[in-house]
This record gives sequence, structure tokens and C-alpha cells, in this order.
Amino acid sequence: MRDDLSAVIDTEHDNESIVGEHWPMIDKPLLLDHGLFGRLRRDAGTHWKSYVAHDFVLALGRGTLPEAAFRHFLVQDYLFLIQFARAHALAGFKATTLADIRAAAASVSAIVDVEMPLHVNYCAGWNLDEVDMVATPEALETTAYTRFVLERGLAGDLLDLQVALAPCLVGYGESGEILLADPKTRLDDNPYREWITAYTSEPYRALVRNSIITLDRLGTECGAEARYPQLLATFIAATKLEEAFWSMGWRAGQVTRDG
Amino acid sequence: MRDDLSAVIDTEHDNESIVGEHWPMIDKPLLLDHGLFGRLRRDAGTHWKSYVAHDFVLALGRGTLPEAAFRHFLVQDYLFLIQFARAHALAGFKATTLADIRAAAASVSAIVDVEMPLHVNYCAGWNLDEVDMVATPEALETTAYTRFVLERGLAGDLLDLQVALAPCLVGYGESGEILLADPKTRLDDNPYREWITAYTSEPYRALVRNSIITLDRLGTECGAEARYPQLLATFIAATKLEEAFWSMGWRAGQVTRDG
Amino acid sequence: MRDDLSAVIDTEHDNESIVGEHWPMIDKPLLLDHGLFGRLRRDAGTHWKSYVAHDFVLALGRGTLPEAAFRHFLVQDYLFLIQFARAHALAGFKATTLADIRAAAASVSAIVDVEMPLHVNYCAGWNLDEVDMVATPEALETTAYTRFVLERGLAGDLLDLQVALAPCLVGYGESGEILLADPKTRLDDNPYREWITAYTSEPYRALVRNSIITLDRLGTECGAEARYPQLLATFIAATKLEEAFWSMGWRAGQVTRDG
Amino acid sequence: MRDDLSAVIDTEHDNESIVGEHWPMIDKPLLLDHGLFGRLRRDAGTHWKSYVAHDFVLALGRGTLPEAAFRHFLVQDYLFLIQFARAHALAGFKATTLADIRAAAASVSAIVDVEMPLHVNYCAGWNLDEVDMVATPEALETTAYTRFVLERGLAGDLLDLQVALAPCLVGYGESGEILLADPKTRLDDNPYREWITAYTSEPYRALVRNSIITLDRLGTECGAEARYPQLLATFIAATKLEEAFWSMGWRAGQVTRDG
Repeated sequence: MRDDLSAVIDTEHDNESIVGEHWPMIDKPLLLDHGLFGRLRRDAGTHWKSYVAHDFVLALGRGTLPEAAFRHFLVQDYLFLIQFARAHALAGFKATTLADIRAAAASVSAIVDVEMPLHVNYCAGWNLDEVDMVATPEALETTAYTRFVLERGLAGDLLDLQVALAPCLVGYGESGEILLADPKTRLDDNPYREWITAYTSEPYRALVRNSIITLDRLGTECGAEARYPQLLATFIAATKLEEAFWSMGWRAGQVTRDG
Repeated sequence: MRDDLSAVIDTEHDNESIVGEHWPMIDKPLLLDHGLFGRLRRDAGTHWKSYVAHDFVLALGRGTLPEAAFRHFLVQDYLFLIQFARAHALAGFKATTLADIRAAAASVSAIVDVEMPLHVNYCAGWNLDEVDMVATPEALETTAYTRFVLERGLAGDLLDLQVALAPCLVGYGESGEILLADPKTRLDDNPYREWITAYTSEPYRALVRNSIITLDRLGTECGAEARYPQLLATFIAATKLEEAFWSMGWRAGQVTRDG
Repeated sequence: MRDDLSAVIDTEHDNESIVGEHWPMIDKPLLLDHGLFGRLRRDAGTHWKSYVAHDFVLALGRGTLPEAAFRHFLVQDYLFLIQFARAHALAGFKATTLADIRAAAASVSAIVDVEMPLHVNYCAGWNLDEVDMVATPEALETTAYTRFVLERGLAGDLLDLQVALAPCLVGYGESGEILLADPKTRLDDNPYREWITAYTSEPYRALVRNSIITLDRLGTECGAEARYPQLLATFIAATKLEEAFWSMGWRAGQVTRDG
Repeated sequence: MRDDLSAVIDTEHDNESIVGEHWPMIDKPLLLDHGLFGRLRRDAGTHWKSYVAHDFVLALGRGTLPEAAFRHFLVQDYLFLIQFARAHALAGFKATTLADIRAAAASVSAIVDVEMPLHVNYCAGWNLDEVDMVATPEALETTAYTRFVLERGLAGDLLDLQVALAPCLVGYGESGEILLADPKTRLDDNPYREWITAYTSEPYRALVRNSIITLDRLGTECGAEARYPQLLATFIAATKLEEAFWSMGWRAGQVTRDG
């Protein structure tokens, strides 16, 4: 789960009214076409679509995802979050202004002090113990995605790092929006209902909008226009690695089903 | 000021009884001789003593430090703290366990969310405005010390980084202890009373003890014994840069006095 | 191919006598059990064996590897080498002595000025054009392995980096030794003869021995004994990523064969 | 000395005709006003002038520099070169194209394999032994300048690193040009003749022109226009640190003279 689930789960009860028989009215759009992010997303084309509308996501919405797939995903997502916290710590080092250092510090704290305990708690509901999760080897896809982001952030500057991180936060929001629009999505008797609720809630959507606006501001300061080809290459690579992360979970379900 | 001032100033009123006509009983020693830190401190010899018992420190205790020296120091300490926050963010990236990531995140938050606002507030009492401070160029000594720590932390591992950071936190505690023992130190009518109180208070001393114990644990995990010559070189270099930082402030006072 | 193929191919003609009807006498062992490397290799157990005796390697020796598998491998190995050069450049930054900086500089130059031109030339013999190779997207396995090594090297110190790099250089040497001992290996009419010759030649074997000895020296200086659990985790992760790299190539052959 | 002295000293004898009674015709200008560098130099204003026309430089040209100042400078320049080599190795890691990796590798090799041996040899002529130099502690100015460059390069991207490095290479070339134009400069009976000859020779001037052109190309690719305020801050900071490096040497001469 992503660095906002905390807020989402915290307010879940307030959002209870949005789920059930009918879908919520979406008042505020996600700004998916806005600024630098919008341009990157458009130019990532089918790579982006293959990620946000992945079979794994659609099956989550329909409640048909094999439990083994979801459990595999949850464990790898736990391992992912540790590296994700390190990536935000890295953003704090890369920052040159106190405002950017503070923003990065807040993100790290949100991940390690709020989101990870919540994730651990959520996993416990699936009989996944933290001691076991931390001892599980990273899947190839987890290593590839997290180390790609960290290394790009180290080799490049803060903008390179944030572009590498962008598909994660925003993509989960768009996946939620796709589920909202999919007539086959259901929440009643859906074991993944809590997950869907989290990523379609207004608090999460607010985080997505905020990150899109922040990336555009950073892009302007850091010369994104002139650097666009390299930034797009980073964005597409990260998007493909996100897609591979879903596929990893999907295959875990297939193996069980076929076995 | 250092990443604990927050706790210190918060509890200042509780410590009020320790100042005034007589000095506090020091129940718990600072553990200055303990473990890896103790060995580094002993082997740094006169470099260490020149730093912790610097004329700047002694003059603070006696209340004789020229105001220009202290004000120069406060501004450069503000600029130092920005880089110090980045160094702790870097420790979060360098960490490999969730516990170490959390510890680093807590340090960064303590610096940017608590200590820096307090420092800015304290500086305002000396008519130093944050907008002016952030626009002040770094002194050579500020650049040298902060970039040395950051670069050592990037080139080496977490232990290298923490050894480079150690003289700062512990040294201020030992300077406080030296002032406690100096019969010429006075708190009444001393314009620097608040600063002295902070670094001789039990909360700060607890931080010092904790960091000394943590460094020893990290040293054991990371093979400090075998790496000792390199670690000592780092420690001595950082100690000399701390001494140069005090000397920078001291000279600012001399210039004014002589001018 | 690895950072020694240059020397190997240069001296190929001198080694001509070793190939053909009978295998060479191996006078000097590879030192696979020596020092820190030997301990890591033993403790990596089946992970190590699965890598060095991978089906891809055995099929190379027998000349039965599908050409598509080898060609896929060659392209990804080209992309790997670019990142491999960056990893050695990183070692130059991480070094603290002039001798270690020089050694890293020599490795980078060997890769970019000698080995890559040779690799490009060798690929041309397989009708693989450099312009096409540089435009080929990295496979997931290539990204995972290279970024893992780079990121470990950045987060840790020079020893962490060199342990992450060790499976590559030494493993290819041991794979060569396994082919020498495999009665099914043949060089006559083997399209991969040149590759096998390279990694079983004395110049390559000398490089392997040298790197094993150097790692042990670095380990002693950097406290490998106390850091062993973390180092072993790095070594095993890198070994598994190397195995995944071979599997990637192997699957490329299966796809073609089955298709 | 800087990463080109090698070429310069190699061709010294060919340039012999340019020194002596009259100054050489300068056919090709240094391109000091060209592109991104030209803009940074203009905007650095008096900081730049204070560096390139430093008293240390002018006294070198006149042969009046105290020997103690020059010897102190030579030792610190040796220590500087070790870090300078690491900075160029870092550029190799930061590079994303094979061409940029190759350029960085060539720079590192030029420094450690050619320039440092020449510098050591030149120092031996001043009775400065390498064993003693490597054991000499870095001056505050050496630490400040080198770690500032390395840290900026790590926190930012390749352009940030190259902007931080630019004052060094180009500044020495402009200092040479200032000496050429200064009627008080003399080569006959000037103990620093070899140093002056090196930095006013055509091979060094070619390096300066080349680096100015390369920086402009990199700036265009990396969005220098939008990032200009931050780049200028880096350039000015590095320029002031270079000036401080000369001042360090100058003071070493004053101490001796006054002592």
C-alpha cells in the first residue's frame, strides 16, 4: 500500500457511505492530465494503461483475485515499503531547501510510523506475521523496482527521483478510478473491499492531486522541459516495473490455481 | 544547537532548580569513556580537548563572550542545522533495518519540526531574523564541517556516517560538563544562561548517553574493531572541524572587539 | 562478458593449443575456497550451484543452446556492461586510498575502452548492431541485478560494493571450470567455442584468483568478520540475481523453440 | 595542478620558443564568455575576479611568492588531487551514456596515472616527498572545497557536479591569461616558471576551451536555463572556495615572512 493509506484507513469509517449499492460522485478529478505528470502519462501510452488497468487490479475489483495472489502481493508490498521509506529519506538528503527537507521527513514518518504499522495490522488480518514477512526474500520484481528508483535518485537529482516515484502513488489512484468506472466492480462480499475503499477515497485522491501539482512545480524549477527525454525514459521504466510488480502477484495466483 | 535542544528547552522549567546559586548534583555520568566512542575520544587526545574546552565555550560560561561572536555563531548554526538534517535523512537511506530507518526519521523530524523552530525562536530573541539567516552565506568552517560529514556518510556506510556525526552531539554535552566544573562559570546575569542550561540539563545528557550506547552497538555490528584506524581518522577530522567552527565564532568576536 | 575478456581474447591464439581434442591441464586452482569469498560461496550453498552450473551454461558447453537464447543474452550483457562500468566508477568514488582509486579507474577503463569494443565486435559477428542494442529496453533481470549492485554500493561502503560484484567475475570462472569437467562439453563445431575459451583461459583464471585475494584483503581491512551476516545476505541476493540473468537468456531460447 | 598538466608538461619542450623575451601570440581565445560558463562567470562578478587575479597568482608571475607559500600549496594540491580524482570517478557513476562514462574514465585515468605522478615528480624537485604529503592533514580550505564539490555532485545530477568543478579547470587558465597580460610577469629567473608555462600553454588552453564547450552542451541537455539560480549559487560557492584555497597558500607565505 502507499504512503497515504494511513490517512485513508483512518477516515475509512467516514467514507463508509460511499460504498455499498452505488458509487460515490467524484467531485474533484485526479488531475491526471495536469502538467509534467500529465505529459509523462500520455507519452507512456500503453505502458501506463497496462499498469493501471492490470488484470490483478480488475480482479481485485471483481473479488475474483485468488487469495494466494493477494497474499503474495501483501508480503512483497511490505518489503517494498521498507525500500520506499529509504527512497523518501533519500529525497530528504537530495533536498536543498528546508521546505523540501521537511516534506521528505513527513513522508518518511508517514510511511514508517503510520502506514507500516497499519499495513502490518492489515496483513495480520490475512494471517501474515511481520516476523515472517521480514524474513521472506524479495521477489525479483520487488528488487528491480525499488533499486531502480533508489539508484536513479542517487545518480540524478531530486526531480529524477520524484519522477521515478510518481507512477506508484498516482497509479494506485488511477487504478482506483478505473475500478469505480468498471461495471463489474463490486464491494459487497468482496474480500478486497478495504483495499479498494482505501484507494478510491477522497483522502487518497487528495494525495494524488497534491503530488501531481508538486511534481509540476519541481519540474519547472529543475528544467523538466529541456530534460524531458531522460525523464520520460525514467517514467516509462518505472511504469513497466510497476506493471511487473502486479504481474508477479498475478502469477502467484495462477500457480496456485493451476497447481 | 543540537538535535535535542527541543527536549531540553521543553523541560527547561523543570530544570530551573538546577541553576542559580549552586550547581546540580550529577547523578548519571555521560559515559564519555564507554565503548567505541570512549576509545575514539581517548585517541583523539588534544584535538578533542581543544574542541570541548574551546575559549568560545569557556567564555560562554563566564558570560564574557562578545555578543558579536555569539550572534555569528547562531547564524552559522542555523545554516549548519539544515545540513545536519540532511545528514540524518542520509542515515535513513543508509539504514538497512526498519528500526534504523525509524530512528533516522525521528532524528530528522526532531531537527526540522522541533529544534529548528526553537532555534529560530531563540535567534529572534537576539534580533536574528530567519529570512536574513537563510540568505547569509555559509562560512568556510560551516561548509567544511557539514560537507565533510555528508560526503563521508555517502562514501562509507552507516557507521562511518555516525562516527562523523558523533563529535557534535557528545561534544556539546562534554562542553556543558566542563562548564559545570569550571569555578568561573556563572549563570546569574549571564546572557548565555539559556544555552548553558540546555546543554547541562538531564534531557540533553540522556541523549548523549543514548548516542554513545547506540554507536557502540552499531560499531559491533559493523566491524569497528577491524576498521578502527579509518574510523579514528574520521573522528579526528570531524573533531578538528568542530574546533574550527568554534574558532570561527571566536574570531567574529575578536574582529568586533579589535575593530 | 566480464572485465577480462579483453585480455582473454587478446591471447586466444596463444591458448589455441589448449582446445581441441583434449582439455588443458589446470595447474593453478581458482582459489574458490579461499578467504572471505570461499566462506561466502560455501554459505550460499545451492544458490551458488544453481547459478554457476545453470542449464544455460551447460548448454553452451554442449553447443546445444538455442541461438536465440545466446543472442538475447548478448544484448542484455551489453546493457549490463554499461551499468557494470558505472559500478566500477562508483568504486573509485568510494575508495579512500590512491591505490584503490587507481584500481577502480583501471577497471572502468578496461570495461569501456577494451571490453565493450570487443563485446560490440563479437556481437557484430552475431549480426547484433550496437545502435540496436543500445536502443533495446533492459530486461527486468538486467535492471534488477545492476541496480541492486549499484544501490548496495551506494548505501554501504566499498566492501559491500565489492561483495555485490563478486559473484559476477568469479562465477563465470567457475562456470568455465564446470564446463572443463563436464564430459559432454565439446569445442569442435561448437558455435559458442570462443565464449568457452575465454572463460577457461589462464588470463581469465588469473583475474578470478586476483579478485578473490583482493576481496579477502579488503574484508580484513573493513571488518568482514563482524559484518558477515549482512555481507552474506548481499552475496546471496547477487547470486540469485545472476542466476535469474541466465534464466532470462534460457527462456528466450525456449520461447523460440516452442513458438 | 589540474587535469591537463600532463599534456602540458609533455609538450613543454615544444613550447620552449614561446617563453623568454617575448610573450606568445594568443591565436585562439579561451572562450571565457561562451555559453553557460560565460554567463556564470559574468554573474559571479567580483568573486570570480578575486579568485583568478589572487595575490598568490600575481606573485607567482612576478617570482616574488615566498617559497613557503608555494610549498604549502603544492602539498595541499596533492591532497586535493586525490579528492579531485574521486569527483571525476563520481561523474562516471552519474553518467547515463557510454560517451559520458568514457569521458569521466579518461579524466580519472589522466589524474591518477599521469598527472599525479607528474605532480609527485614536480614536488620532488621542491624536496617534497610523497610519503610525507600523504601523511599531511588536509587544510580546512582543502576539505571545504573538495567535500563541497563531491557532496554537491552526489546530491544533484551530473550538471550540478560539473558546474561545481568548472571554476577549477577554467580558472587556472584565466589566471594564466592574466599573467600573460601583466607587465610585471617575468619568466627569466622565476622559480615558478614551469608552473606558469604549464597554464599558459596551448594544450592547457585547449582543455579549457573544450570544457567550456562541453559544459554548455550538458547545460542544454539538463535544463540549465530553468535551473540557473541554483547553478549560479553552486558556481559562486565553488569560486569562493577556490579563492580561499589560494588565500590558504598566501597565508603560509606570510607566516614565514613575518615569523
